[in-house]
Amino acid sequence: MFKSFEKQPVGTKLNFEEVLGSLKFNDQGLIPVIAQQFDSGEVLMMAWMNREALDETLRAGQVCYWSRSRAKLWRKGESSGQVQLLNKLRIDCDGDTLLAMVDQTGPACHTGRHNCFYLEIGSKSVEIIAEVLIDPDELYRS
Amino acid sequence: MFKSFEKQPVGTKLNFEEVLGSLKFNDQGLIPVIAQQFDSGEVLMMAWMNREALDETLRAGQVCYWSRSRAKLWRKGESSGQVQLLNKLRIDCDGDTLLAMVDQTGPACHTGRHNCFYLEIGSKSVEIIAEVLIDPDELYRS
Repeated sequence: MFKSFEKQPVGTKLNFEEVLGSLKFNDQGLIPVIAQQFDSGEVLMMAWMNREALDETLRAGQVCYWSRSRAKLWRKGESSGQVQLLNKLRIDCDGDTLLAMVDQTGPACHTGRHNCFYLEIGSKSVEIIAEVLIDPDELYRS
Repeated sequence: MFKSFEKQPVGTKLNFEEVLGSLKFNDQGLIPVIAQQFDSGEVLMMAWMNREALDETLRAGQVCYWSRSRAKLWRKGESSGQVQLLNKLRIDCDGDTLLAMVDQTGPACHTGRHNCFYLEIGSKSVEIIAEVLIDPDELYRS
């Protein structure tokens, strides 16, 4: 299905339900979602949505993932207050990955760092490259 | 394992083999990799690596994925010439996603667009928002 329109020009409008209904969820019914800060371009995290989480995200205008560990909808920030306001939601060429451009309130990472990618692979070691901004014990207590 | 050092400060150096050996590959032995243009911040694509592809990426300094459809190492750009020079490779807080900051030669997307996220979800339709820069038939013929 995604192959059928890939040569179409900018501005082409595709049927909403047809495209969303053709997304390739994996065998657990999930699709990976990259969250990126809309203005700075910072990649914040990667998590997963099922169709219900996707619909909830579009309805609420705030990002809602599917928590694999808790097996339920995860309205990002519902316990920490660190919500992700949805700016734009994009689909990739294969229909198997989403890019959520968001406005992140506070740190995105459960460690209290601004984004989750705080470990950098060097030639001989892996280095911690980002500081903890908020003690997670504080974040999840309130 | 990733929990054990998450409160450590910037500059902490962790054992290379210990961290890479603790990465959480899925039940197919794969880990998702986000490719981002290192200077502009543009998210280019998402693909997968197994441990062999990761080692090859670090060895070569160019991104090598695992092609799920072809079930073999996929040295990005090997047929198109559109390689991804590795700038930085980062691991997320859970050890289950990688962020490759790269310098992309030409378009990253097999459709000939600069990145793969060329479909934007609107309230009533899905719109094509990026133009084809190179005809894919040209890209893969050469």
